[in-house]
Amino acid sequence: MEIYNAVEHFDEPLHLESGRILSEFDLAYECYGKLNENKSNAIVVCHALTGSAHAAGIYEGDRKAGWWDGIIGDGKAIDTTKYFVICVNILGSSFGSTNPLSIEPSTKKEYRLRFPVLVISDVVRAQMRLFDRLGIKEAYAVVGGSLGGMQALCFAIEFPNFAKRVVMLATTYATKAWAIAFNKIAIEGIVKDPNFKGGYYDKDDIAANGLTGMALGRMAGHISFLSPSTMDKKFGRKYVETDGLYELLGRFEVDRYMEYNGNNFPKRFDPLSYLYVVKMMNNFDCTRHYGSLNEALMLTKARLTFIAFSGDILFPPNLMLEMHEALIQIGQGHRSEYICIDSDYGHDAFLVEIEKIEDYIKKALDE
Amino acid sequence: MEIYNAVEHFDEPLHLESGRILSEFDLAYECYGKLNENKSNAIVVCHALTGSAHAAGIYEGDRKAGWWDGIIGDGKAIDTTKYFVICVNILGSSFGSTNPLSIEPSTKKEYRLRFPVLVISDVVRAQMRLFDRLGIKEAYAVVGGSLGGMQALCFAIEFPNFAKRVVMLATTYATKAWAIAFNKIAIEGIVKDPNFKGGYYDKDDIAANGLTGMALGRMAGHISFLSPSTMDKKFGRKYVETDGLYELLGRFEVDRYMEYNGNNFPKRFDPLSYLYVVKMMNNFDCTRHYGSLNEALMLTKARLTFIAFSGDILFPPNLMLEMHEALIQIGQGHRSEYICIDSDYGHDAFLVEIEKIEDYIKKALDE
Repeated sequence: MEIYNAVEHFDEPLHLESGRILSEFDLAYECYGKLNENKSNAIVVCHALTGSAHAAGIYEGDRKAGWWDGIIGDGKAIDTTKYFVICVNILGSSFGSTNPLSIEPSTKKEYRLRFPVLVISDVVRAQMRLFDRLGIKEAYAVVGGSLGGMQALCFAIEFPNFAKRVVMLATTYATKAWAIAFNKIAIEGIVKDPNFKGGYYDKDDIAANGLTGMALGRMAGHISFLSPSTMDKKFGRKYVETDGLYELLGRFEVDRYMEYNGNNFPKRFDPLSYLYVVKMMNNFDCTRHYGSLNEALMLTKARLTFIAFSGDILFPPNLMLEMHEALIQIGQGHRSEYICIDSDYGHDAFLVEIEKIEDYIKKALDE
Repeated sequence: MEIYNAVEHFDEPLHLESGRILSEFDLAYECYGKLNENKSNAIVVCHALTGSAHAAGIYEGDRKAGWWDGIIGDGKAIDTTKYFVICVNILGSSFGSTNPLSIEPSTKKEYRLRFPVLVISDVVRAQMRLFDRLGIKEAYAVVGGSLGGMQALCFAIEFPNFAKRVVMLATTYATKAWAIAFNKIAIEGIVKDPNFKGGYYDKDDIAANGLTGMALGRMAGHISFLSPSTMDKKFGRKYVETDGLYELLGRFEVDRYMEYNGNNFPKRFDPLSYLYVVKMMNNFDCTRHYGSLNEALMLTKARLTFIAFSGDILFPPNLMLEMHEALIQIGQGHRSEYICIDSDYGHDAFLVEIEKIEDYIKKALDE
């Protein structure tokens, strides 16, 4: 399977839900497989909070493959010998698309905190521009987990004629207080960090040394991605030899995991970009313009598949079950499927429990 | 009900599990009710991580009563007309007992990071000194929740002849990776805060302005104390009007709750003391000297009552159920009771769901 990647520039202004306008923007994306002649075999894959367009395949010299390489590829659940798969880096994210560190055309300086607030609907609308340019009027399917599932749901509600099948994993119709609370640690951590300097931090310094507050926030995130039982199985009470202050304070295997994931994160993800994507997640509520979940889902036309994971504490299964039940209530149960996969892997299950999800995704695409 | 409070000084050295020695120490405590003539009606109540000896009653001029005032008092579940209730501030905590900011006798300076590491067994052994001084050879019961439950369990295992009844709520036989992970945010937050200065922070400054990293850690703690469903019921997606950077980033009701609880915490609890009590919790494993839970529980003689809460994600019910099942396995099921109270209040349930727990506590004491 070959990876095609590109950055597409758009200079028609994008009117955002906030009322502000992005006068121009870039979208970075990757494609796998071949678009057929009548352009009917495109599957849009939407990435999660800190994901990128690099969903599958492996670049020469890289150690790691794309974030959903177990699912996307020749002969895999999302079969690149049959489908043309496209994954777009969301606006606001720092992996190639326009984000707070991009140059603002009117000032010729980085946007930083002048970057407009984005909501999932904006991000989805920007992607539609790209599909339009590529001549893709209809997608065979849209698939996404977590924040990617929120995008998929948005496609289903706001562009009901775009995709025939929408598959959502480990996601919700609205971000609830529990998830907002976890995000709060990240927001506070970043904003209160003396090195954040009101958003005018030194990029090189942060790339080299990290940002302590952001690392703390990410550690909290990594708690929410797992579950008590996985953590127990993974780490138990294993102790790690250490020195200095940590010797006094103690250091467990799970502490090392938190340090590793927390401390490396600011080196690979920009703090401002993180604030904007977290805000995007916090703000997500697909019912906001429609009064109720029933009314929001009434707008959809696609076949909807909800894949939840029993151990997910960030977006617990009941949130997806509510959507399935709402569809039944409005007489649309025939085009809704709810699957709860038994996994104590927590929220991360949609990224790691490949063997448990591949058949359900295949089935959702084949039907 | 009257409150009696005192600080008792001990100048016989306390040999700690770490091998270090506290050459002298203070214990602050409160008592309610009257000790009967043969000193057989004492109930020891053990406080949680950031609790104090002030378990019940209200001081003149105070707005708030003690932390378990709903349970302890005249005619209440722990009835102070019948029992003599005593609650001791644990060693290491900054509410009156010897802690890292106490003066080290040999140097005449504050201990700070020279303070010895304490484990629950040390804390329990120190309390035994106090009971001995008060002439209490046997307690009618020991009761405690969370870290207080760990102490109660230690009393049961290490001083099997001390109490006839031991009641534990929302606790565990060993702190698992999930809880250690939450504590990690606090430890990292404190240690990495530039104002922590390697433990030599300015006390007045922190009491006045707080400590950002510690506030972040406490926010994470407040997530672990609740549950997704309580948070949803309590806060929903309610939005709070705000200004400045928070206007851009958004501020929900739950954010305000986190800010309030996080930011106030360093003003009332000392950072070093917090590091030591968190370490104490992380280190807790009542099986550590005995090879297995069965063998640890084989040492107990008291009637043991385990009260778990269905929504507790910090110390989930299965941890207490394991203890109950271990007791059955070793043929001691007749003196063990396990109750799982349906509550989505999360870990905090043992402090707030008074109506749901009072009858069980009463029953455990009456039997």
